[in-house]
Amino acid sequence: MKAIQVGLLGIGTVGSGVYNVLKRNQHEILRRAGRGIEITMVADLDTARAQSLVGPGVRVVDDARAIIANPDIDIVVELIGGYGIARQLVMEAIEAGKHVVTANKALLAVHGTEIFAAAHRKGVMVAFEAAVAGGIPIIKALREGLTANSIEWIAGIINGTTNFILSEMRDKGLDFDVALKDAQRLGYAEADPTFDIEGVDAAHKATIMSAIAFGIPVQFDKAYVEGITRLAAQDIKYAEQLGYRIKLLGITKRTAKGIELRVHPALVPSKRLIANVEGAMNAVMVQGDAVGTTLYYGKGAGSEPTASAVIADLVDVTRLHTVDAAHRVPHLAFQPDAMSDAPVLPMTEVVTSYYLRLRVADEAGVLAKVTGLLAAAGISVDAMLQREAGEGEKQTDLIILTHSVREGTMNDVIAQMQGLATVLAPITRIRKEELA
Amino acid sequence: MKAIQVGLLGIGTVGSGVYNVLKRNQHEILRRAGRGIEITMVADLDTARAQSLVGPGVRVVDDARAIIANPDIDIVVELIGGYGIARQLVMEAIEAGKHVVTANKALLAVHGTEIFAAAHRKGVMVAFEAAVAGGIPIIKALREGLTANSIEWIAGIINGTTNFILSEMRDKGLDFDVALKDAQRLGYAEADPTFDIEGVDAAHKATIMSAIAFGIPVQFDKAYVEGITRLAAQDIKYAEQLGYRIKLLGITKRTAKGIELRVHPALVPSKRLIANVEGAMNAVMVQGDAVGTTLYYGKGAGSEPTASAVIADLVDVTRLHTVDAAHRVPHLAFQPDAMSDAPVLPMTEVVTSYYLRLRVADEAGVLAKVTGLLAAAGISVDAMLQREAGEGEKQTDLIILTHSVREGTMNDVIAQMQGLATVLAPITRIRKEELA
Repeated sequence: MKAIQVGLLGIGTVGSGVYNVLKRNQHEILRRAGRGIEITMVADLDTARAQSLVGPGVRVVDDARAIIANPDIDIVVELIGGYGIARQLVMEAIEAGKHVVTANKALLAVHGTEIFAAAHRKGVMVAFEAAVAGGIPIIKALREGLTANSIEWIAGIINGTTNFILSEMRDKGLDFDVALKDAQRLGYAEADPTFDIEGVDAAHKATIMSAIAFGIPVQFDKAYVEGITRLAAQDIKYAEQLGYRIKLLGITKRTAKGIELRVHPALVPSKRLIANVEGAMNAVMVQGDAVGTTLYYGKGAGSEPTASAVIADLVDVTRLHTVDAAHRVPHLAFQPDAMSDAPVLPMTEVVTSYYLRLRVADEAGVLAKVTGLLAAAGISVDAMLQREAGEGEKQTDLIILTHSVREGTMNDVIAQMQGLATVLAPITRIRKEELA
Repeated sequence: MKAIQVGLLGIGTVGSGVYNVLKRNQHEILRRAGRGIEITMVADLDTARAQSLVGPGVRVVDDARAIIANPDIDIVVELIGGYGIARQLVMEAIEAGKHVVTANKALLAVHGTEIFAAAHRKGVMVAFEAAVAGGIPIIKALREGLTANSIEWIAGIINGTTNFILSEMRDKGLDFDVALKDAQRLGYAEADPTFDIEGVDAAHKATIMSAIAFGIPVQFDKAYVEGITRLAAQDIKYAEQLGYRIKLLGITKRTAKGIELRVHPALVPSKRLIANVEGAMNAVMVQGDAVGTTLYYGKGAGSEPTASAVIADLVDVTRLHTVDAAHRVPHLAFQPDAMSDAPVLPMTEVVTSYYLRLRVADEAGVLAKVTGLLAAAGISVDAMLQREAGEGEKQTDLIILTHSVREGTMNDVIAQMQGLATVLAPITRIRKEELA
């Protein structure tokens, strides 16, 4: 049988990885897929560079629409990124009856509803394993491996840049700014790292996971997003003393009231496997009612790890593109007519536990006032750490770990604490997840 | 559409888990699969107990063949275990045109070639996610998630009983016999634990993984199998001092000469995630040339975790049973006409590194003799630990970690060391895997 024809939109880091891995492992992939998979066209603005990457056998164009318009092309791989032109091209490819493979988490988290609806209408596949956690087959695990389960929650380290920075801060006692500069120097963070360090990239991925875990539409606009830019080295140190590590987690959780969807730094017990995921690695924990806890670990970014996921999608599409959609896995794991309307909860309705650091005057009665406010709000204290004030110092750090409470309640109590005359600086609040 | 009809052969721990999870999550599973999945018949020798488990709506029989002969049954789930009657029934079900889901690793590792050939001829699916690592979707990851990769090696903790025993030995400094009794008392080990503690169960699973990773037939008879019964508490302690933990690993690896397939205790660097997998949990590391290292973690046994895998297979079969086999994932990941004839290597050809413990006379020249033998065979020493002899003691332990060497060479050197007059007891040899 003739090889299936693939057109790449964009050949940067991931695109060249896809080309190289497909070429290197073509025999092995053919033995698995039963049909060859061949990149026959590439669109890139820098045609000279693109042509030098793929050699003379591949047609290189500067107009992506030439690929979409080509009737010989079966699958369009979108690797442009962002939600501008990428969105238009993906929609046009779908309208042209092409199957689409994309690594574009931003696009799917924001415009997924429109895209999947169009794909459903046209009967084409849109595959996106590479959009979450790079080479880790987490989309497949969620959509197919855990279908027996009512999924309870997912918590993942799904941004390698921030995990690298946090690992450096802990290992070397660095402050955020210094660790960020190191990460940039070493190629782990981009020149403009905003999307990574502010948690936006992780929130895109968490949004996609929440949809396929719970059968809700993608709702990036409802996600709570907090990055790591305000984390201080001393909080990492205090957390360590209390038996925790701080990780940027993407969390989505089913509760009686609705779905939690949030990205923020969190204390995680040091003994959990996920707390020991270091450097730029990714890991996702999934809690299902039947299977219990599972964890998936690997490289979340990079040329060939991401290509691994793109090509797995190409093999799936090669296998299933000619069958009726009823035989394929639904785009968002649940049948389009069986989606849930469970609301995504505002952050004030989230229930979790907290780490609080208060800079307080070293005088009698401070502790009583602070704990009094917690008690009045019905918040129990799980652990407390008060540093002995240094010689001559008149203030000290008071660290409190709480049990679970509604975030809205905690906000009120923090505001009250902040009003105490003996609380001398803005209170630091970091959420704590036991992940048990 | 009418629900797909499932018949269970055997309703013990796993079978009742399948029934309960399917019932509890029927709405969620229907929303995913697009079609109901219903257990309509159960065969079990204890019909009264079976009927009480499934209630009056399900037909319970004592003759499994009544299920196979029933034209309304679409899928037969084999949960009998072993390779006696289970093999006959699976073959008969296939011949009757039924799709089969099984958790039976022993059956597939030993008779897989015959079973998959028959299934291929009849055009039916045989799904077996539950056969390896319980609820962890590792079969799906290997067969579908990592199709882009030339897989280099797999190393897994794939037997919960032995991992529980090893965790207890390390935590509490217990000897093997004591830890085994604890495991039996707590329900983590069976009354006859032979298959678990001798490594046979892990070898069944490693055999299945080797086939789907490398596209070779299942060859359990070629697997090297060594259990944990001879492990001493002191080796666990010495390993710890050297920065390692001892785990029972199922390993399969592609080399230029052929495929390694082996189960044995191994020292693993303590900093590796897999070294920190404790208790009855399972974890599998997979190294692919594109994706790098990935790891999959979860419960490897138990009623509902195993049911999770069985039901995921039921959903896959529900989706794909009416399409042509070309649209399905091949049973062993590679197309039946594209299997590899790479040989499984004898253990003497395996190349790995070693931990050696020698009980030696505490006298001058011993170390020179021992290291002389290693040097003569071209084996480099990675680390060494010699305990100071206790007061009045005339012998001591000498621990050596080596670099990589062919097992056959190491066997010769150990025999030579054993012949030294100053080596006072049988030498302990444990393999060491860096997993990097």
